[in-house]
Amino acid sequence: MVTVTVWNEYRHERTDEAVQAVYPDGIHATIAAALDERFAVRTATLDEPDHGLPPDRLEETDVLLWWGHEAHDEVSDDVVDRVQEQVLEGMGLIVLHSGHYAKIFKRLLGTSCNLQYREDGATERVWVVDPGHPIADGLPESFELPQTEMYGEPFDVPEPDRLVFVSWFEGGEVFRSGCCYLRGSGRIFYFRPGHETYPIYEHEHVQQVLRNAVDWATPREGSPRTFGERD
Amino acid sequence: MVTVTVWNEYRHERTDEAVQAVYPDGIHATIAAALDERFAVRTATLDEPDHGLPPDRLEETDVLLWWGHEAHDEVSDDVVDRVQEQVLEGMGLIVLHSGHYAKIFKRLLGTSCNLQYREDGATERVWVVDPGHPIADGLPESFELPQTEMYGEPFDVPEPDRLVFVSWFEGGEVFRSGCCYLRGSGRIFYFRPGHETYPIYEHEHVQQVLRNAVDWATPREGSPRTFGERD
Amino acid sequence: MVTVTVWNEYRHERTDEAVQAVYPDGIHATIAAALDERFAVRTATLDEPDHGLPPDRLEETDVLLWWGHEAHDEVSDDVVDRVQEQVLEGMGLIVLHSGHYAKIFKRLLGTSCNLQYREDGATERVWVVDPGHPIADGLPESFELPQTEMYGEPFDVPEPDRLVFVSWFEGGEVFRSGCCYLRGSGRIFYFRPGHETYPIYEHEHVQQVLRNAVDWATPREGSPRTFGERD
Amino acid sequence: MVTVTVWNEYRHERTDEAVQAVYPDGIHATIAAALDERFAVRTATLDEPDHGLPPDRLEETDVLLWWGHEAHDEVSDDVVDRVQEQVLEGMGLIVLHSGHYAKIFKRLLGTSCNLQYREDGATERVWVVDPGHPIADGLPESFELPQTEMYGEPFDVPEPDRLVFVSWFEGGEVFRSGCCYLRGSGRIFYFRPGHETYPIYEHEHVQQVLRNAVDWATPREGSPRTFGERD
Repeated sequence: MVTVTVWNEYRHERTDEAVQAVYPDGIHATIAAALDERFAVRTATLDEPDHGLPPDRLEETDVLLWWGHEAHDEVSDDVVDRVQEQVLEGMGLIVLHSGHYAKIFKRLLGTSCNLQYREDGATERVWVVDPGHPIADGLPESFELPQTEMYGEPFDVPEPDRLVFVSWFEGGEVFRSGCCYLRGSGRIFYFRPGHETYPIYEHEHVQQVLRNAVDWATPREGSPRTFGERD
Repeated sequence: MVTVTVWNEYRHERTDEAVQAVYPDGIHATIAAALDERFAVRTATLDEPDHGLPPDRLEETDVLLWWGHEAHDEVSDDVVDRVQEQVLEGMGLIVLHSGHYAKIFKRLLGTSCNLQYREDGATERVWVVDPGHPIADGLPESFELPQTEMYGEPFDVPEPDRLVFVSWFEGGEVFRSGCCYLRGSGRIFYFRPGHETYPIYEHEHVQQVLRNAVDWATPREGSPRTFGERD
Repeated sequence: MVTVTVWNEYRHERTDEAVQAVYPDGIHATIAAALDERFAVRTATLDEPDHGLPPDRLEETDVLLWWGHEAHDEVSDDVVDRVQEQVLEGMGLIVLHSGHYAKIFKRLLGTSCNLQYREDGATERVWVVDPGHPIADGLPESFELPQTEMYGEPFDVPEPDRLVFVSWFEGGEVFRSGCCYLRGSGRIFYFRPGHETYPIYEHEHVQQVLRNAVDWATPREGSPRTFGERD
Repeated sequence: MVTVTVWNEYRHERTDEAVQAVYPDGIHATIAAALDERFAVRTATLDEPDHGLPPDRLEETDVLLWWGHEAHDEVSDDVVDRVQEQVLEGMGLIVLHSGHYAKIFKRLLGTSCNLQYREDGATERVWVVDPGHPIADGLPESFELPQTEMYGEPFDVPEPDRLVFVSWFEGGEVFRSGCCYLRGSGRIFYFRPGHETYPIYEHEHVQQVLRNAVDWATPREGSPRTFGERD
């Protein structure tokens, strides 16, 4: 069975009533519930020892989902090192919304991962631009999120290996909302939708994307990654 | 000096008053005028012998721009063969708007090149998503075309080598509007904006894109393309 | 169950004793035998009606393998049209060795697909350059084919979406031997090894690649590919 | 005029007689001499203050070449931060041979950048696999380096945006020797050939590659990279 760890910063759910109202048990609980019919799902949060990601836990993880927002800097470099190493060895990584600014995402992509934003609660329409991609399985040609925070281009990331979604925003912006990368033997998927004060992760199609992305990011057996001196 | 040939179907400008009003001398004349300060520009049209593209003319051409709309099927396969061969040998090709359905574009890309569209004259905003790309030189972060025909995803083309522009449409769609491909030694750029009844090619930033694209698509010296049996 | 059709030109096996000695029942039979424990495998050959690929047969096919060599020109354009359409709608296509020059491969890639070659029976070593790719599952870091026909660069194909294998040849050449493409919703894999007078398709690792490639190329459910005018 | 800075660790040239014999004034001097007819070239080395790369110096630099080998860890993180930021803003970066393990290369690519190697002084043949690429301008289809250190796959880097060269090694290995990346607005080129005890940078075609790579990596004007909150 595929082992999934949902990581959440889990801060504003404990301090901000508006966030509590939407995600009373934390964003990780909502995401885990969306996944758990098909996978062995566990959660981990920033304030646990080792941020809930000690070495043995990471080694057992096939796919790690990452949500962070206001405390990216509190994630220890040791944990970032370990997650990076695991990804290069094949662990899948799914980075959500404001996680674009997480240390681990910037570490693996090498760019600033900066973007434009506006917290206006206007409509987003997510378009599938790669209809044959496994992460688009079972989706309509587009779907709407009635209220979101806008993210706009330029998005300072490397050109994705595959671009699956492009978002349209009511206010006039566009964004590459579903970006696939391979780094080492690990599959990385960045998915834009998600916000702490809108119930984005309750949305049927968003949940479908999360399940599809876990499937896609699950490690393969692969071929040896042997480095160093040769005879 | 870089030799540019602007090819135009040149049919509706001669039969449709609405088009004549916008492009009295043909779309090719407007495009040529936008380019000719910096390049040796010639034009060619469908109803000339060999569609204005006899072999010697093609061999002298560094970059070919292509506009077509309602008579794609009248382009002879011989001319398509010759253009394809020239592109593989290094000639640049810039395909404009409804040229997405031109035989030569489908030939070089291998897909249906189909898309969605709506002729509603609503606003398009073209966003730069690759700000360091030469085709984006001197552009603002986005620019607006007040009235356009909408093109929407999915756009059935291979994943571009580089995606330079994404368009936002007032009606709720998005489109990958500036797509770069290399085929053989030739650079191909598809640019969405342009329509026969809106003065898109009079627009300052559209003209800048055309000039940048010609620069980008100009052939390099390269290295030998030698094929066949080796000793 | 995944339905696989192995297509073979099936000419030199019937006329050339050296080929008969290696592939007495045709190359298609050897390939089918390598696959058939895991898939519903059928074969089709050039001299059958519709080349063994009538419309209903193609519609039932999830993944098509293609071997051709000396009779590429005898494949009818109608069949090429149908195969192209099926690939764009999601059917997987695996093109083998001299199939690089098949009409359907050139149609889907848009380039000459030309290369250099030497029929010298020298050693090839196939290196995995993308160890996390599903097509490399279970392979060693490299494997040797003691006698092959050499294929050398330049290989006139679009830059692969993913490059899985690079071959080293005893005579001093290299070749991009495992190239992945997506066209429409269809996955295409070109695999270089294979020759009519060497028992390449009897090789354990080559057979593993074929099985992996069929898995990788199997269509997904996907999202709608709707084109044309929108309201 | 394009301003180029050639950075060299410059250690073994001062301590190892075998290296001194090949590069008496340092590898940077040989590289600078190969470039200086066409560019404004300066050099910088590890043991200068700020490693010779104070902020104003970096800001003036259009293209930075990087050679390092045994002292990667002595490069300060502050300098790595600054170089990364400059690259994202458009500065070109050319990383040479053992620089694959430089902090700045790993920072920008996000992977381990590990590989296999053997210091056997055997022959390398560098093949052009992308003959239309500007970095291949004026090169033959392949060229030989009679004595080199071997680098073999797997090379743990992201799939290159464009792969220009693949090397063949006498001992049976292959390597992706010329890899292009875009990160932010900056162009990055990794070029494998080069070794401290073989006169690789005296080689005519290697010098041609260096000049071509500087041309290719020179920043363009581009379009604004504006990030943060939008109205």
